[in-house]
Amino acid sequence: MNQDRRNRLRDAAIAVLAREGGRGLTHRAVDAAAAVPTGTAKNYFPTRDALLRAAAERCAERYHALAEALADPGPEHGAGPGVVAEPGPGAGPADAALLAALLAALLRDTAGSGRTRVLAYLELQAEAARRPWLAELLDPVAAADFAAHAHLLRAAGLPAGPARVRALTLALHGAIPHLLTGAPATLAAAGLDDLDRFTRELLAVVCEEETR
Amino acid sequence: MNQDRRNRLRDAAIAVLAREGGRGLTHRAVDAAAAVPTGTAKNYFPTRDALLRAAAERCAERYHALAEALADPGPEHGAGPGVVAEPGPGAGPADAALLAALLAALLRDTAGSGRTRVLAYLELQAEAARRPWLAELLDPVAAADFAAHAHLLRAAGLPAGPARVRALTLALHGAIPHLLTGAPATLAAAGLDDLDRFTRELLAVVCEEETR
Repeated sequence: MNQDRRNRLRDAAIAVLAREGGRGLTHRAVDAAAAVPTGTAKNYFPTRDALLRAAAERCAERYHALAEALADPGPEHGAGPGVVAEPGPGAGPADAALLAALLAALLRDTAGSGRTRVLAYLELQAEAARRPWLAELLDPVAAADFAAHAHLLRAAGLPAGPARVRALTLALHGAIPHLLTGAPATLAAAGLDDLDRFTRELLAVVCEEETR
Repeated sequence: MNQDRRNRLRDAAIAVLAREGGRGLTHRAVDAAAAVPTGTAKNYFPTRDALLRAAAERCAERYHALAEALADPGPEHGAGPGVVAEPGPGAGPADAALLAALLAALLRDTAGSGRTRVLAYLELQAEAARRPWLAELLDPVAAADFAAHAHLLRAAGLPAGPARVRALTLALHGAIPHLLTGAPATLAAAGLDDLDRFTRELLAVVCEEETR
């Protein structure tokens, strides 16, 4: 089967999930969103569960590509979006200010160009509470996020014990639905109306060290 | 219209949302779940949007009733579930250990007897990203959670500046989908496999004070 067409269908499944919710994810809707002949999606992904799996795997791929592009552009790509001081494989942001900028960029993507992917991911997460096989598929993706944040804290020279990593990661996960909904009182209460200040303050709280 | 029947239908809408997702919320499904004659739900809540609104308002009511029962049983109810040292209107938990126990009880409810309500709320949150009127309806509910946590931190004699309240509230919000999904690697990475330890450590991280 054609890999380009396969990815086009997987992107279309994400778009349908984001726009219509789990309610709207049908083969016909995916065919229409991908602008391919009726029956194509069913050919590649015969069941609705296969469509869900395809969307989940594509969400994870796109998220990892974004996180890598933002955190580790690599020497051959120059300084990337300017959030890594000395880019290189696995380097990560070199201090707390750069890490705050990286996290703000990731959150900004959630509300901006990544909105479709993140909305689809939330739909998948809701479905996963009802479908054990989908929960199993998403499990390593969500778990890896904690390891990734531990790595980023260490790279930035910040304390990275498990309780700090958990507080940081879960607070960022908790911010996502509020950013997608964009309801003003909640955004203000959460401090998400200023993402640079938000991530700076979150890191300060989470990484504060008692010196007594 | 009959208030008991109205609440029974609203509870049924929550049950349908939780079991089937937004995809399954129809008048017919609500009638069946409430064990009432076909057409009853449509009589009380004529449109699908009215059903969504009914479910949202009922979720908020049930959540507030639970939080009040756990935090402020009031003198006339005795010590309630044992998480408030000296119960009384607006008292809240008197120290960090009692607050940790209260928050653990709330999270335990999410994965336990509150599971239906919380699953339905996540479905509503996902729908809210597509329906501005629903986002508006949920906005004060989510925003009030930040104020409630600020109150609890102060009652427990802990620092309650905005950045700490935000980190605590968002980390708790972020924990909820992971608890509902119950995927083992994610629960372990998030520390959610032991809720008492989790809330104790979260409070310690969020309320740590720099003394330099």
